[in-house]
Amino acid sequence: KTHIDCLTARKIIRLPGLIDIHVHLREPGDSHKEDWQSGTGAALAGGFTLIGVMPNTKPPITNSDNYGLVSKLATAGAKCDYALYLAATADNSKIVSKMAQNNRVLSLKMYLNNTFGDLCLPDMTDWMKHLQNWPKNIPICVHAERQTTAAIISLAHLYDQPIHICHVAREEEILVIKAAKEKGMKVTCEVSPHHLFLSEENIESIGGLQRSTVKPSLVSLKDQKALWDNMDVIDVFASDHAPHLVSEKDGSDSPPGFPGLETTLPLLLTAVKENRLTINDLIKRMYLNPKRIFNIPDQKNTYIEVDLDEEWVIPEAMPFSKARWTPFNGKKVFGRVRRVVLRNEVVFVDGRVLVSAGFGRNIFHTELSSAQTSTENT
Amino acid sequence: KTHIDCLTARKIIRLPGLIDIHVHLREPGDSHKEDWQSGTGAALAGGFTLIGVMPNTKPPITNSDNYGLVSKLATAGAKCDYALYLAATADNSKIVSKMAQNNRVLSLKMYLNNTFGDLCLPDMTDWMKHLQNWPKNIPICVHAERQTTAAIISLAHLYDQPIHICHVAREEEILVIKAAKEKGMKVTCEVSPHHLFLSEENIESIGGLQRSTVKPSLVSLKDQKALWDNMDVIDVFASDHAPHLVSEKDGSDSPPGFPGLETTLPLLLTAVKENRLTINDLIKRMYLNPKRIFNIPDQKNTYIEVDLDEEWVIPEAMPFSKARWTPFNGKKVFGRVRRVVLRNEVVFVDGRVLVSAGFGRNIFHTELSSAQTSTENT
Ligand SMILES: [Zn+2]
Ligand SMILES: [Zn+2]
Ligand SMILES: [Zn+2]
Ligand SMILES: [Zn+2]
Ligand SMILES: [Zn+2]
Ligand SMILES: [Zn+2]
Ligand SMILES: [Zn+2]
Ligand SMILES: [Zn+2]
Repeated sequence: KTHIDCLTARKIIRLPGLIDIHVHLREPGDSHKEDWQSGTGAALAGGFTLIGVMPNTKPPITNSDNYGLVSKLATAGAKCDYALYLAATADNSKIVSKMAQNNRVLSLKMYLNNTFGDLCLPDMTDWMKHLQNWPKNIPICVHAERQTTAAIISLAHLYDQPIHICHVAREEEILVIKAAKEKGMKVTCEVSPHHLFLSEENIESIGGLQRSTVKPSLVSLKDQKALWDNMDVIDVFASDHAPHLVSEKDGSDSPPGFPGLETTLPLLLTAVKENRLTINDLIKRMYLNPKRIFNIPDQKNTYIEVDLDEEWVIPEAMPFSKARWTPFNGKKVFGRVRRVVLRNEVVFVDGRVLVSAGFGRNIFHTELSSAQTSTENT
Repeated sequence: KTHIDCLTARKIIRLPGLIDIHVHLREPGDSHKEDWQSGTGAALAGGFTLIGVMPNTKPPITNSDNYGLVSKLATAGAKCDYALYLAATADNSKIVSKMAQNNRVLSLKMYLNNTFGDLCLPDMTDWMKHLQNWPKNIPICVHAERQTTAAIISLAHLYDQPIHICHVAREEEILVIKAAKEKGMKVTCEVSPHHLFLSEENIESIGGLQRSTVKPSLVSLKDQKALWDNMDVIDVFASDHAPHLVSEKDGSDSPPGFPGLETTLPLLLTAVKENRLTINDLIKRMYLNPKRIFNIPDQKNTYIEVDLDEEWVIPEAMPFSKARWTPFNGKKVFGRVRRVVLRNEVVFVDGRVLVSAGFGRNIFHTELSSAQTSTENT
């Protein structure tokens, strides 16, 4: 940086601690890709004081034992606050609905397209079991691409169950959600930065088809435009942070997913700078709406400070995630997280995470270790 | 037959002229598989005085020119009455809706799964165009398997468009339709005999995987049971008569479909004989319901006479269809069509079709050649 920069008055703004409801940590099972410490550190660096952690770990969070296992890892490792998802299987609808009554969770995740391994639920009779049993006051989150978006909206409507569509990526998906909302159906949705800021056109520059593998896949410019044109239909921005190593991505059977926790906010702030979004659009979708949709309690005395003017280029890898690469490498962005304050503690400042593993809490458990305790009781 | 049979008093009953709303004739394009004369003769032999003819001919009925071409072939060849479908494409929503306003047709057919060639519409934005433009008083008929069943019910509900689900085959499909009906949605459905009376278990005896190729594919016994268990959800029985030659079926790329016009009624009458259905169940689903759902005019002075007691074994091929094979070969059935009277003419008696090509009329055109005339005017 030049000396002149230093003398310039920077525009620092204070925002609420942001919420990213769609994060894959890889512990237990694949801690070399990410673990609770590295992932929650990346979250703080990215301006998130609260993350929703996906249940497709190894083992997945499909029953009380696995929930207890993950709760312990979370209690020990988390640097930011978090909430957990449960995962639906063909057989566990009664189990997970009971678990959700004992320990409030963020949501139930259902993988409805038939492209996923163990957790895939292509048969609608299995959806019906969950729609019947799951508590009606907690939305169910679904991976539901293309026609599956309309199918689950239909079934959820039949069972009067609020539904949240993850990572909407295509014109047909956002238009169906728009129409369903206009009809008063209980549907909300999220979009991820890689569908807003990348497209099929970027596959080569990202490093080819393998490296670009993600679900939903990178879309056409027409689909991308439909997302921007229907911004008012999008309730939430979520990273779908899904870290894998470069060596894994570039192998013959590339696992789908991109890291995103550390790049989501700068990309969106850049869109604000370019007048494609307002700062209020962003606060709504990264704080107010997730909080309202999932009925998330307050994080008291929690906020972040962001330098809106700092211009930088996304490097080959962001510092905190173990993924050590990013599909946004080379993008010029505006906006840098300067300070993160979580429950009155300065937990991040100018590139350094200051807080120890274990500081983060399950947002739904008011007493410190109630998660663990109640799990041990079941 | 023995002499004793001849002396027995047979139970002959009179039924309304039956309606089969789902029939593929192959003219124009593949007249060697079926043409208007052979197909409508098979219909009469099967007890049907009215058939709904599918639009996936070569060329398909996607515009006025092709409609005019098929109308002329129909006028010249039909031995029973008929109604025509139009076919939806990504680009013809305005064209077909206007055609339907000028010449009443049975319905618009949309192929929504992505397994069909030219007429396939996997993208929901294309569904929306048709749902927006198609006249609301005519149900749209859809090929919509598995999740696609729920997806189209959802979209149709959003556009307040009555929808008819063709050849429901699976548990998840019938259960979704049941739930949608309970919620008051405007959905109806049909089931085909090969899903009621055949299953995966029959593939070998039919002659292997190639010969058994059909869409939807033959289902599991669990799915089949779900159809029977939810008989009250099924509005219509329809053959999905889809003739191909044995030489084509047994080739490496078997075209999907079975002939069905001549075997549907005997199979269902056998279910009546076995107390799995009542004769009223059958009249509802092969006459009253199709008439009501599609607002089909009366065929005056039209009925059929059926011998309920005659027991026979379905041969290798039924006499009238050019397909010259049937997947039901070897099945013992009860019930034989003795006489068919159409608009006061005896058109079929004891195995012989008595009427000439051209006797059949488009049921929606009251004056004899109005179909042709109005087409020439457009
Ligand atoms: Zn400086
Ligand atoms: Zn997903
Ligand atoms: Zn409704
Ligand atoms: Zn994900
Ligand atoms: Zn005899
Ligand atoms: Zn079909
Ligand atoms: Zn099933
Ligand atoms: Zn068909």
